[in-house]
Amino acid sequence: MELFFDPKSVVIVGASNAPFNLGATICSMLKEFLCYPGAVYAVNSKGEAVKGFPGYKSVLDLPQTPDLAVIIVAARHVPGVIRDCARKGVTRVIIESAGFSEEGEDGAALQREIDGIARSCGIRMMGPNCLGTLSTRDKFCCFYGINPSLVEMKQIFESPGTMSYIIQSGGMAVLVMESLYYDLVGVNKVVSIGNKCDVNEADLIDYFQNDETQVIGIYLENVGDGGKLMEAARRSRKPILIYKAGKTEEGAQAAMSHTAGMSGNDRIFDSACRQAGMIRLSSADELHSLPKMFTEMPLLKGKRIAVFTNTGAFGSIAADLLVESGLAMSVLSPQTQERLKKAGQVFNVKNPVDIGPAPPQTYLDIFEILLSAEEVDGLFPVLSVWQPFVIDALLELIKMCRHYDKPAAIYTPNAIAKTISIRAKHRIPVFERADEAVRALAVSLAYEAFRERRDQAISQCS
Amino acid sequence: MELFFDPKSVVIVGASNAPFNLGATICSMLKEFLCYPGAVYAVNSKGEAVKGFPGYKSVLDLPQTPDLAVIIVAARHVPGVIRDCARKGVTRVIIESAGFSEEGEDGAALQREIDGIARSCGIRMMGPNCLGTLSTRDKFCCFYGINPSLVEMKQIFESPGTMSYIIQSGGMAVLVMESLYYDLVGVNKVVSIGNKCDVNEADLIDYFQNDETQVIGIYLENVGDGGKLMEAARRSRKPILIYKAGKTEEGAQAAMSHTAGMSGNDRIFDSACRQAGMIRLSSADELHSLPKMFTEMPLLKGKRIAVFTNTGAFGSIAADLLVESGLAMSVLSPQTQERLKKAGQVFNVKNPVDIGPAPPQTYLDIFEILLSAEEVDGLFPVLSVWQPFVIDALLELIKMCRHYDKPAAIYTPNAIAKTISIRAKHRIPVFERADEAVRALAVSLAYEAFRERRDQAISQCS
Repeated sequence: MELFFDPKSVVIVGASNAPFNLGATICSMLKEFLCYPGAVYAVNSKGEAVKGFPGYKSVLDLPQTPDLAVIIVAARHVPGVIRDCARKGVTRVIIESAGFSEEGEDGAALQREIDGIARSCGIRMMGPNCLGTLSTRDKFCCFYGINPSLVEMKQIFESPGTMSYIIQSGGMAVLVMESLYYDLVGVNKVVSIGNKCDVNEADLIDYFQNDETQVIGIYLENVGDGGKLMEAARRSRKPILIYKAGKTEEGAQAAMSHTAGMSGNDRIFDSACRQAGMIRLSSADELHSLPKMFTEMPLLKGKRIAVFTNTGAFGSIAADLLVESGLAMSVLSPQTQERLKKAGQVFNVKNPVDIGPAPPQTYLDIFEILLSAEEVDGLFPVLSVWQPFVIDALLELIKMCRHYDKPAAIYTPNAIAKTISIRAKHRIPVFERADEAVRALAVSLAYEAFRERRDQAISQCS
Repeated sequence: MELFFDPKSVVIVGASNAPFNLGATICSMLKEFLCYPGAVYAVNSKGEAVKGFPGYKSVLDLPQTPDLAVIIVAARHVPGVIRDCARKGVTRVIIESAGFSEEGEDGAALQREIDGIARSCGIRMMGPNCLGTLSTRDKFCCFYGINPSLVEMKQIFESPGTMSYIIQSGGMAVLVMESLYYDLVGVNKVVSIGNKCDVNEADLIDYFQNDETQVIGIYLENVGDGGKLMEAARRSRKPILIYKAGKTEEGAQAAMSHTAGMSGNDRIFDSACRQAGMIRLSSADELHSLPKMFTEMPLLKGKRIAVFTNTGAFGSIAADLLVESGLAMSVLSPQTQERLKKAGQVFNVKNPVDIGPAPPQTYLDIFEILLSAEEVDGLFPVLSVWQPFVIDALLELIKMCRHYDKPAAIYTPNAIAKTISIRAKHRIPVFERADEAVRALAVSLAYEAFRERRDQAISQCS
């Protein structure tokens, strides 16, 4: 699988100097944007060079056997190109061309044809109808049509991270990366698998076990081999966040016209996720909003949450949200309440802990009292940033969470534009909405509970 | 009620030059920030002037009878001050002091005492435990503790709008205003009613019928007089968006400690909202995110929605969201599909309408085809802003929506920071999330359906 993400040499079949040529956008990205260090070849009918990379009329004419062939030609030409790749000894191909099973029976027949060729020749194939791979550490990307002037894209490659995505739709891949740029967690790898007639999400979950990936995000429009996906997910030592479009019949029909394939019974998928320990997301936004809970905070090990707020109204909102999410308001012990009373400025020493205008030390004292309390498993701080010191207090909180091995899902009830800027500038894992923060606590607990069950089952077997 | 929002003269009882004095923050806001044109007096034990406003030892000493008294002294002194106000002939008082029924039985007794005094003297009272009123057009605000250096606050007064809020919690009022600053709709009036022992939400709904208000937003922690609220809501000619904290028992308990009062049975409240045509919000964020659907777009008159996207994945997500919200995917007629085919670049002419890279005119053609179709009641455009022309197309769409009297709930699947900046810069009513946009369509339809039912009932009676 490594050759798909880190090829030392690549051929872009279909890259030419014709206007609006999509293969050329891949060449210019590799050349000007990524300074990709490997060899790049272009194949087109004229055999012309593209963006400074040497051109040939056929894969057969290349001076070496490239690690990877990226194919972006009209669908009807794809079988011939794959045969050429096989003859040249290429073992990895990415078919970006559309016009296969997502376009009715003729396309499906063509897809079966290329699948047969690839299998018989021992070629591993991604796609068709996909964008292929992106690896920030390897400075490789074969997504077509990406505008290299995008500041966000540049940044994503300059600060590699630990989040890897398997995304069936290219448009969604771009949205997720653009959004992560304004969030905390960096990107490791992204792969768009389209109609996935060979390489699928299960192969990639396995692959992401052995690289820098910390959290795996998946966006699916349909599940090909459910059994294989469940096995890979069960094995995974890294949390998997999964969103599947097509929950309703109408949504499933729309998915059909987009990447082909039946999305299947939604309830079956739901129970499969629970059994395999995959966190099923309730919106595509959660693909970029939730990872920070796993990368920046310890896992939640019990459901008793303490709320700490400097904006009274949110005590009640927070309690509602926690209880509705299956979490619980921690019942603070008399000792803890006594300690809170001594911290001063506290309106309410029961949970939610509600304070008025208070100096920075009061915030730190309350964090410490709550995190160290036996009856508290995690914290939901709802702290309006009404003075800059609140930011410093939150930075201290992150350290304390690690020390006590208990997470905090931070929410700052300020305008969202402010929240985003606080998060980006100070690297605080703050959530954009109260319900999002509570959701992060809930999924952290669900994942920890799955892990414990699985590891117990394994230890009982051995 | 007008005197509470637009007094020609006001006394701040409790404003002094002591450090951290809260009354003084009101004085400085009126003086330096708002340039409030009316007369302002301060009352404190020394009789000293505050922020340039003349000071007196008692309300009785004032050179005139002010239209309004704002009282912010220790709770135990409040009864005496109200008696002085009565003797001076003051008919409107706002009690900002805390320490009443939100703090147990002693406080409740004190609250009953001041209520009795006010009623017997014919004084209308807001509070206690509140921030009082803010009116952007009248340049009046008696909220304490507001930092006049806040750019957002200044802007809110400089661009008066049509959104009025009744908010039981001061902190929530500030959050809503801060958030609206980054959104489209401007603020008309805001009122924080605290423990509302006299003036309550029903009085204010009635009052907002006869001013510039277009949409009323309400945040409640408890309902005092449910019958009165329902009657006022039923009468209202303006949509009411209402959020009530304390849905769960835990949330209700937290609310109790904040502004006092039982939040009551949640299911009863839910059905009361439906009967009275109030739109019950599912998060406090909706207080600032949903109004633009009412101020910028026609009401939705049927549930058949057409989805138009340039990011294929969102076709399926949009269909799921619409169906789950009780709306329906419009079934496009053969004629409409034929027209869409001719528009060109369309991957899918069935709903969701999915296009590839296309020139600006294609966007405009598709908007026109869909909005003019008899089988389409409203539009859900999910358009990634991948080129600046998409913004121009959206601006045209707004005009077309008004022309065809059908709404569009616009969502741009870009990073949220980009979405916010597009909205602010170009004044496009774009929603921050796909589910938020669909929710806006759903509440628009719910309100229109209520209005129709009510108006039919009225016409049958007369």
